[in-house]
Amino acid sequence: MAFTGHVFLGMSVDGFIARPDDDLGWLESRGAEAGDAGFTPFVASVDALLMGRGTYRVIAPHAEWPYQGKPVHVVSSTLDPAADPRITVHRTLDEAVAALDAAGYARVYLDGGATVRQLLARGRVQTLTLSRVPVLIGEGFSLFGPLPADVPLEHVSTEVLGGGMVQTTYRVGESSRPATT
Amino acid sequence: MAFTGHVFLGMSVDGFIARPDDDLGWLESRGAEAGDAGFTPFVASVDALLMGRGTYRVIAPHAEWPYQGKPVHVVSSTLDPAADPRITVHRTLDEAVAALDAAGYARVYLDGGATVRQLLARGRVQTLTLSRVPVLIGEGFSLFGPLPADVPLEHVSTEVLGGGMVQTTYRVGESSRPATT
Repeated sequence: MAFTGHVFLGMSVDGFIARPDDDLGWLESRGAEAGDAGFTPFVASVDALLMGRGTYRVIAPHAEWPYQGKPVHVVSSTLDPAADPRITVHRTLDEAVAALDAAGYARVYLDGGATVRQLLARGRVQTLTLSRVPVLIGEGFSLFGPLPADVPLEHVSTEVLGGGMVQTTYRVGESSRPATT
Repeated sequence: MAFTGHVFLGMSVDGFIARPDDDLGWLESRGAEAGDAGFTPFVASVDALLMGRGTYRVIAPHAEWPYQGKPVHVVSSTLDPAADPRITVHRTLDEAVAALDAAGYARVYLDGGATVRQLLARGRVQTLTLSRVPVLIGEGFSLFGPLPADVPLEHVSTEVLGGGMVQTTYRVGESSRPATT
């Protein structure tokens, strides 16, 4: 069975998910005014998480591990698989995708720009929930990047949350070229 | 008197305002379902337009000149000032800004990525109306770019228009560092 990927990410109006130094203060300070913003029910709705080493490195030191006991899978060619009992390490994205499919997961939370971009290109993302906080930060890590073809989206819902956060959910349509995997 | 700059731009969800070859078909086809989307009253509310040569080059060949008789100012170091009676050519952005201030215009419509980015950096943008059509195109000309400092925004309104276009208006706050001009 092939899982469907689901993205839930906060970003600036200019499309960044973190500063070049991984700083998230600009996002967290503004996101706090939006409250939970649907994060808790979103995490409850997935069977597992998949992220890259970059995202893991940012989240791991936080006091709170926000994933409600869901299995967390991390793609990294260098991380020691035994270093953190909360995660399962895969050496390549292909390995991770195959393992998650084999595990029978239906819905997987995809986190981090690189993971999202690669899974978008493979046609494995079903929904994107993008929460834009009202600031332009000018540079940083972008959620988006080059794609093998246009990815049409279908608007599902838009909500304005506290602090001027605009949260839109899209369903991802069929790419105009076939997915590569 | 110093004019205030106002931006009204359509873009993809991944933040592009045109493809690398200037193609706008992906935007126009989807934007058509949103109807006028507030463009006519927006143009009616401004005293003049300011754009760069790149934007002018895309708009000039269109059958319809959509600016309701408003004065259109174009920044270009190469365009022949006499080539198009519909426009006034300025050799530098500084010259254009000074001329528009001297003309006593209160509200100026800023069009095109380079013009918007430079005026944002100078603290001369008062509102941003961004209309996102539901597609990821992967590459092209971005509205946004590096900034001398974070630019905080204040959410004014969000509306979901036909075809899943999400249109949000922001008021631009004071940058955390002083504007350079």
